[in-house]
Amino acid sequence: MAEAGWTLHPQLEHDAALLGDLALCRVLAMDDADTPWLILVPRRPGVTELFDLGDEAGALMGEIAQIARVLKDVTRCDKINVAAIGNVVSQLHVHVVARRKDDALWPKPVWGAGSRRAGDAARFATFIATMRSRLALNAAC
Amino acid sequence: MAEAGWTLHPQLEHDAALLGDLALCRVLAMDDADTPWLILVPRRPGVTELFDLGDEAGALMGEIAQIARVLKDVTRCDKINVAAIGNVVSQLHVHVVARRKDDALWPKPVWGAGSRRAGDAARFATFIATMRSRLALNAAC
Repeated sequence: MAEAGWTLHPQLEHDAALLGDLALCRVLAMDDADTPWLILVPRRPGVTELFDLGDEAGALMGEIAQIARVLKDVTRCDKINVAAIGNVVSQLHVHVVARRKDDALWPKPVWGAGSRRAGDAARFATFIATMRSRLALNAAC
Repeated sequence: MAEAGWTLHPQLEHDAALLGDLALCRVLAMDDADTPWLILVPRRPGVTELFDLGDEAGALMGEIAQIARVLKDVTRCDKINVAAIGNVVSQLHVHVVARRKDDALWPKPVWGAGSRRAGDAARFATFIATMRSRLALNAAC
């Protein structure tokens, strides 16, 4: 499979900020006051389920693990939560979320919990810059 | 890493029925009236995050994709939802859930939605038998 014909779903483009591209996935960040929250989107057209990726599912897991490790290291969180849901936006995307035992929703998942609250703009910009640096991402994609 | 020293977390053992073992994971089924729901648990001791699996994370993704494909085929659901949360039970376990647009919670995720309702016992037994057959699983593990 190739990147040709792939475009980021407009809802994801609207909801999240761009960090850059890994080999397979576009990396986005949700601006959530309570939760450092990244999203991985494989740049492959027509992919809805994990198994639609075929042999590239392993590469997706590699990038999930890479992102999760860096996110845990940067945030010093208690637990990484990972999910591919896609009931609203069917384009395959994987949430990688840093959870703390003292965050507002713990131990409940963040998904389906209602509206998010945007965080401090400067703090979000610093988070994005830190993650870009740690992941060697270039935003010009 | 090896299976030695691994035991299934008692909460998972209590909450779910045993289907059998794939090469890496123990496969369990939750008895939920509204949602066909499987759980994969890598038989590796001391593993909490996906990246704790090291090189075996790819093998986990292979088993997730296998389970998801069969579950979608058996249930003819609209969407597979996958998550590794672990805020309550830290032993790494991955939910693979078959969702329908007419199920009670759609499009919300099933996690954190409150108490489940057990389904019809005969229907659950048939579901387990079907999944065991399709996955060539043996319950004697």
